[in-house]
Amino acid sequence: MTDRLIYLPLGGAGEIGMNAYVYGYGAAGKERLIVVDLGVTFPDMDGTPGVDLILPDIAWLEARKAQIEGIFITHAHEDHVGAIGHYWERLGAPVYARPFTANIARRKLEEQGHPENVVKVVDPYPHMISCGPFTVSYLPISHSIPESAGLLIDSPDGRVLHSGDFKIDETPVVGDPWDQDLWEEVSRDGVKALVCDSTNVFSDAPGRSEASIGPAITEMMKDASGLVVATTFASNIARLKTLALAAKDAGRSVCLLGRAMRRMTEAATDEGILQGFPSTISPEDALNVPRENLMLLVTGSQGERRAASAQLAQGSYLGLKLKDGDTFLFSSKVIPGNERGVIRIMNQLSEMGVDVIDDAGGKYHVSGHANRPDLARLHEVVKPQMLIPMHGEHRHLREHVKLGNAGGLTGIVAVNGMMINLSGNQPTVAEYIDTGRTYLDGSVKIGAMDGIVRDRIRMALNGQLIVTLIIDENDEPLGDPWVEINGLPEIGNSNAPLVDVIEEDLSQFLNRANDKTLADDDKLEKELKTIARRTAQREIGKKPEVTVIVSRLG
Amino acid sequence: MTDRLIYLPLGGAGEIGMNAYVYGYGAAGKERLIVVDLGVTFPDMDGTPGVDLILPDIAWLEARKAQIEGIFITHAHEDHVGAIGHYWERLGAPVYARPFTANIARRKLEEQGHPENVVKVVDPYPHMISCGPFTVSYLPISHSIPESAGLLIDSPDGRVLHSGDFKIDETPVVGDPWDQDLWEEVSRDGVKALVCDSTNVFSDAPGRSEASIGPAITEMMKDASGLVVATTFASNIARLKTLALAAKDAGRSVCLLGRAMRRMTEAATDEGILQGFPSTISPEDALNVPRENLMLLVTGSQGERRAASAQLAQGSYLGLKLKDGDTFLFSSKVIPGNERGVIRIMNQLSEMGVDVIDDAGGKYHVSGHANRPDLARLHEVVKPQMLIPMHGEHRHLREHVKLGNAGGLTGIVAVNGMMINLSGNQPTVAEYIDTGRTYLDGSVKIGAMDGIVRDRIRMALNGQLIVTLIIDENDEPLGDPWVEINGLPEIGNSNAPLVDVIEEDLSQFLNRANDKTLADDDKLEKELKTIARRTAQREIGKKPEVTVIVSRLG
Repeated sequence: MTDRLIYLPLGGAGEIGMNAYVYGYGAAGKERLIVVDLGVTFPDMDGTPGVDLILPDIAWLEARKAQIEGIFITHAHEDHVGAIGHYWERLGAPVYARPFTANIARRKLEEQGHPENVVKVVDPYPHMISCGPFTVSYLPISHSIPESAGLLIDSPDGRVLHSGDFKIDETPVVGDPWDQDLWEEVSRDGVKALVCDSTNVFSDAPGRSEASIGPAITEMMKDASGLVVATTFASNIARLKTLALAAKDAGRSVCLLGRAMRRMTEAATDEGILQGFPSTISPEDALNVPRENLMLLVTGSQGERRAASAQLAQGSYLGLKLKDGDTFLFSSKVIPGNERGVIRIMNQLSEMGVDVIDDAGGKYHVSGHANRPDLARLHEVVKPQMLIPMHGEHRHLREHVKLGNAGGLTGIVAVNGMMINLSGNQPTVAEYIDTGRTYLDGSVKIGAMDGIVRDRIRMALNGQLIVTLIIDENDEPLGDPWVEINGLPEIGNSNAPLVDVIEEDLSQFLNRANDKTLADDDKLEKELKTIARRTAQREIGKKPEVTVIVSRLG
Repeated sequence: MTDRLIYLPLGGAGEIGMNAYVYGYGAAGKERLIVVDLGVTFPDMDGTPGVDLILPDIAWLEARKAQIEGIFITHAHEDHVGAIGHYWERLGAPVYARPFTANIARRKLEEQGHPENVVKVVDPYPHMISCGPFTVSYLPISHSIPESAGLLIDSPDGRVLHSGDFKIDETPVVGDPWDQDLWEEVSRDGVKALVCDSTNVFSDAPGRSEASIGPAITEMMKDASGLVVATTFASNIARLKTLALAAKDAGRSVCLLGRAMRRMTEAATDEGILQGFPSTISPEDALNVPRENLMLLVTGSQGERRAASAQLAQGSYLGLKLKDGDTFLFSSKVIPGNERGVIRIMNQLSEMGVDVIDDAGGKYHVSGHANRPDLARLHEVVKPQMLIPMHGEHRHLREHVKLGNAGGLTGIVAVNGMMINLSGNQPTVAEYIDTGRTYLDGSVKIGAMDGIVRDRIRMALNGQLIVTLIIDENDEPLGDPWVEINGLPEIGNSNAPLVDVIEEDLSQFLNRANDKTLADDDKLEKELKTIARRTAQREIGKKPEVTVIVSRLG
């Protein structure tokens, strides 16, 4: 059997978030594997109420644990590294990362009680990591977090370039600038496949540099009369620096607030990335600084309920309070789905008299992902034999293939679970793998299709009704059935308590019920449930979720 | 006691949606009242799971039913007329509206079994309606639905202009163009207060006319090779006409799909508004038209799960199916909070190979609300003594006051429940009224603060656990406690069934419990609940909602 080079996305292809990609080389079914990124995505009330974290389903990988040579993390964003602590034990392979990413990965492993020395800190290209049939090298590339990297993945069947998340930024403030020479160099001898970030394929304008927004932010901070609060992703160290330098230029001391802000700047300090970052003051000291000389740099740009932004909007955080005349800057984009939370904070701030400035005009924020013309530029530099879009919803992947086609490239829309054979001249689908999502629910991992969350959603939509009934030793009801409700109106259309009306209907049924029904738990439960739902429908226009508990004596 | 002129928003001020405004004139507490608009807003999974419709709380009005002289509906959008059927009986006053709006209002009254003849069809200005101490006239104004109107409200204390929802559009395709002369005329003798739409106060560019987008849409429809589907709000008759004319110009027959689409075009036909609208074909006939000669005009621009858009994206609707090479146009803006639903449809369409075109560039959609410069223009035309922003979240109202201030106007941020006295030279807060939201939940109206929906949200977040226990005649447990779970993992951290572990812990407690505890229902329930939650926390890292049912024999 001939060896083959495969690509398999388990997360991140067909969605934005939860990145987990697999490459393999070897005989079909016996490939030696490497994993690129192990990220998470975040739950929402619409589809995943009560869930704590959403992870890719790695059952396929777990079943092939012995074939895994290594795990390569491209950068320290949660959607790329967030699952490493939860999954490392199941995969058991060494984890490779550049220093800052490794620092974050180690913290995540430690949190879950795993040995942090499984993380191998690597130098970037031209340093090469030999890993089974692969040779891998980290290619520095600009993004919105320090030390992001694409991967050069050499196999006996040729070279793959995995872009990682990237933008083309020659002046990124912190981190590696776009290095066209490097990408030309690694592409010179021919690239089999470019596996490429698709996030901003619908953004037609060329991307803007991180350095371009500093002056406008400085001006804004100078113009502001009261306290200035700025929020962005804590991991965007470059933006933190842009904001902090602007504050300094505007005569403002900088105070960092929020757990993620502390964790990220600690890691950046550990790894020596914070050079040129203005010194910051503690929240206690900030209380003594005049408002017009202070900037708070806070977490919660996505409206997260417990973050510093939300707490400030609700009153105070560590004794710091906003008031009329202060300014709050969202130096960030709202991720689709988070609008309600962000708008809630904006209105709370408005009620306090705080001026809110958001990214409406693009003056105070630039994206960390390559826009359409910059994607075309990378295609042009790399000139791959095939283009495999990743890091996008279906519509992004499809549009990215179209963009590649327009530039003369062959491409394929490969979504989670589609194993692609890269060995031929064209990418072909080798297999379809069952994939999905795993929920971290409290401390337990559950499958997205287990029905547990579905049951919770049903209770949220329909309310819940409990019927208890005791049957005596002679298979006769002992007393009347008892009804309790949760999340349902107490009074229905007949103006009587809903539970009374349902109990009455259930009692009448029991009076009529024959011995056979009373002796049969399943039948009895089914009938009681049907009656309860029918009566509820009549009384309140809703059919609740019903739990029937029949207790038999003796 | 002197008479006073009051303004009281019960909905729509501090939110976008659920408009309900009250004006009154008379001695304090004895004012004769008119109501302007009675709208609804829509529930979402985040805060109102399972709710069918959200209505303003009109308890204050209901308690003053005898003081209400009339209900004036400015236009037929759901956020202005949607509650009329649900509330008319409680208010009992005549309803005034222009013909198209009246048509829609009558349908809503009829649906709820109310006499439709309570709706009085009115002519616009200079026709005057005498209503208690008020004289009211409908001022035609352009918006995204036919026959929108502002209101001229004359009182003994002066004239109020209530803008209604509006934009400044001189070529609105359907409906009344902006009539500067009219608004100058009614403002000539002095306006006490301008109560004004604030929706687009953050949009800095001047608004664009509905007529401006026709050519681009025609071009797009000509360029499209397969079937074209377009979606927008069904009530936007002008947009439907723009889209249908573009289709006709591109050689495409037009087929309308979706219940709201039928209802709105029926009402428009009834009222003679559809002149110049191309003839349409039925869904049955559409099946026989070549794809390149067909356009479907469908409901569901906000990603609503049961609308025609969603059904087409999931496979088919009335036998019509989309396929590779078709085009789907969102001629609409996504209302914040609806992003997830719209994106889901976009990706489903992408999976079918359908090209999705959205409003990203503003080429195929214009807003129905006045942008900032147009608001300033209305201020300038009306030159009111005071500006009262409405139809906006807090941030919109506040920004709108600032805009007014910049133009030399006095303004006040008046949110729901703030009764404003307009009689003096400055607007002042007269009273704070308890307001809120009423939920239509199935067929029952419940209060937003009743805790019913809160309980449903808790079950969705935490899952639900039921403990049943039978206590015998001697106050001794009869058998073991029984546990059932809903929406919780079956197996916890100790790898045993969760219900078994909890039942064991409960049994141990009962074995230890003294007679006093066993005889006291409240104490027993509290203890059982605490233990169940503690064990669940240990086993699954979650504290579920717990219902304890103790049945006592004898």
